[in-house]
Amino acid sequence: MSLITLATDFGTRDPFVGLMKGAILSIAPGATIVDLTHAIEPGDILAGALALEAVVGVFPPEAIHVGVVDPGVGSSRAAVALRTDAGVFVGPDNGLFTLALARAPLRRAVRLTNPRYHRPAVSATFHGRDIFAPVAAHLALGASLDDLGEPIDKLVTLDVPRPRRDGDTLILHVLHVDRFGNLITDLVASEHPDWLSARSRLLVGDTTIRSIRRTFADVAPGQPVAYVGSLGRLEIAVRDGSAAATMRVGRGETITLCR
Amino acid sequence: MSLITLATDFGTRDPFVGLMKGAILSIAPGATIVDLTHAIEPGDILAGALALEAVVGVFPPEAIHVGVVDPGVGSSRAAVALRTDAGVFVGPDNGLFTLALARAPLRRAVRLTNPRYHRPAVSATFHGRDIFAPVAAHLALGASLDDLGEPIDKLVTLDVPRPRRDGDTLILHVLHVDRFGNLITDLVASEHPDWLSARSRLLVGDTTIRSIRRTFADVAPGQPVAYVGSLGRLEIAVRDGSAAATMRVGRGETITLCR
Amino acid sequence: MSLITLATDFGTRDPFVGLMKGAILSIAPGATIVDLTHAIEPGDILAGALALEAVVGVFPPEAIHVGVVDPGVGSSRAAVALRTDAGVFVGPDNGLFTLALARAPLRRAVRLTNPRYHRPAVSATFHGRDIFAPVAAHLALGASLDDLGEPIDKLVTLDVPRPRRDGDTLILHVLHVDRFGNLITDLVASEHPDWLSARSRLLVGDTTIRSIRRTFADVAPGQPVAYVGSLGRLEIAVRDGSAAATMRVGRGETITLCR
Repeated sequence: MSLITLATDFGTRDPFVGLMKGAILSIAPGATIVDLTHAIEPGDILAGALALEAVVGVFPPEAIHVGVVDPGVGSSRAAVALRTDAGVFVGPDNGLFTLALARAPLRRAVRLTNPRYHRPAVSATFHGRDIFAPVAAHLALGASLDDLGEPIDKLVTLDVPRPRRDGDTLILHVLHVDRFGNLITDLVASEHPDWLSARSRLLVGDTTIRSIRRTFADVAPGQPVAYVGSLGRLEIAVRDGSAAATMRVGRGETITLCR
Repeated sequence: MSLITLATDFGTRDPFVGLMKGAILSIAPGATIVDLTHAIEPGDILAGALALEAVVGVFPPEAIHVGVVDPGVGSSRAAVALRTDAGVFVGPDNGLFTLALARAPLRRAVRLTNPRYHRPAVSATFHGRDIFAPVAAHLALGASLDDLGEPIDKLVTLDVPRPRRDGDTLILHVLHVDRFGNLITDLVASEHPDWLSARSRLLVGDTTIRSIRRTFADVAPGQPVAYVGSLGRLEIAVRDGSAAATMRVGRGETITLCR
Repeated sequence: MSLITLATDFGTRDPFVGLMKGAILSIAPGATIVDLTHAIEPGDILAGALALEAVVGVFPPEAIHVGVVDPGVGSSRAAVALRTDAGVFVGPDNGLFTLALARAPLRRAVRLTNPRYHRPAVSATFHGRDIFAPVAAHLALGASLDDLGEPIDKLVTLDVPRPRRDGDTLILHVLHVDRFGNLITDLVASEHPDWLSARSRLLVGDTTIRSIRRTFADVAPGQPVAYVGSLGRLEIAVRDGSAAATMRVGRGETITLCR
């Protein structure tokens, strides 16, 4: 087993992702590589963090997850590898792994300072190809974290919106609008079990939703619905439609939840 | 050999497809996974059916083809696995495999009711990750259809447009506009051999095409052309251009064919 | 090791790329396939050539690189396989490999005329699936170039823009605008070392850049910067922004460089 996932803001128009894979396969020809997403908006660390959160519990615990949303490439930001119970995360130390670490506690963290595990000539602009990919390949071949560099004590943490209590209500934030126009919120169901019931009510833009359901199939086509999504977060959808378009609510906006 | 293809409407912006792969590789680490397409418009079952039709005769007969265009996820729609001479198809029973089955006759069909072959906690909204992916992985490892659930007699069939005879003409329908602006029709060449010749004429929007050719390279740049495409269907193209844009004809519109 | 890369203008909306992979894996089930890009604009040979140039020095020298940007498919253009020190390139003989060959000299070239290495029924419109994919698979299994067809002496060369000397200045051309809005020029750093220094000045649209730096992290956010990019070419960027949007400069436009 040597499974490496890639989550980047490189897009798929340019060959950047293919070049990362070339760098990996030059070192670890037998590695299995999975694309998580490459459509993160350039520099959108929160979107990258959400994509990386989703791997916890789905991929085998031996997997290596490379994240490259790295506006600070070439600056003094650290490059790191982080061992957790959900695999090793490799990428820039800029908060990209904050949400994954909230679900899979950190066991050990190192800075990627040992050039033996990088490509011979490291560019100043493409550490995905020149540092993160070869480090992941060497991890897949069995390198230990301590081979890669010295321990790092303090990681950069991303300031992620969190639900805010306001009297009898909880103010949620839309973290992401997905492909289907569903609104993914900052409410992690397991952290607020007593707020989620058939009697909960939500105010989303001008729309009131009068219950938490199991899934969008529990309402009629065209109707709004709130439910705990496949990522464990409260989501708002419109069945067979787009909640974002119908309710004109997007990322960063708030939703009010009353129990 | 354990080859699994994926055709979904999940897009590649969110990590949904990557998570399906994580679920597969957790069970069958050696599986080879091929993306057929993830750009089906949300809920567009006909477009999914056309993508899945194309695998027949191209992939090895042991391949497992997972299709997830599934607006009814979480409802009472069945989940199925269908054995054919062109591989096993896995997905929702909503007509998604209708066109593939027209080319590769069905041998055996089961409902995916055995939870032993699903992920431990099945979400109500993401059967791609929680049911279809693990079922495909277990098939790749050698599970038999009968392990997966009980036989199902009657499958949902998609109502696909078909050529309609009208006196001396055949009325065709545009099923799909491809990346190059080519118009893919509902005429399967092998089913209407006597309609396709150098003397056939077509009326496409305001454009008359006076012959069926071998390929677009048989006409001058900018000229319209009709030919039997690589999928075995009659197609309309404009050489080095877009038939859809030039002729202002799109999906669902009709084309008149005279022999 | 049997590593095959794919660079095409097929997009990822239709199943064309998946079908190429099906054709490959039917012959070479153990092949590892990497997508370089499929987002080349239809028929844009220069963009394809740039993507294929990038593999040199990154992928193992045994890799097989399939390029399909092929507006002449079905015409009399030749299909070729080209052995270099950076792997074998397979595709149409239309100049698509010109930039790769400038970095990895050609060792041997053959026309793909032996039908034994093609799919049984070759369509007139999809040589990617019917000729290039199976040829790549057979190469991965160990076929020699001479098995595939007869030698070809003269290849089509793409007319790529090159820097032009004009008195004390060098007139550069923008070959490509990447995902981040960076401008990739026709100046290959290794070919013009004496033009690139901290004192070089560039005129890009209405913007003057007064130095060549190591990377965009060397300037403040929002500032323009010129540097040698990860592909070895001079690039123009705006830190944390888009040079193309900010400077309103696009592909084909010129940049003036003074040393």
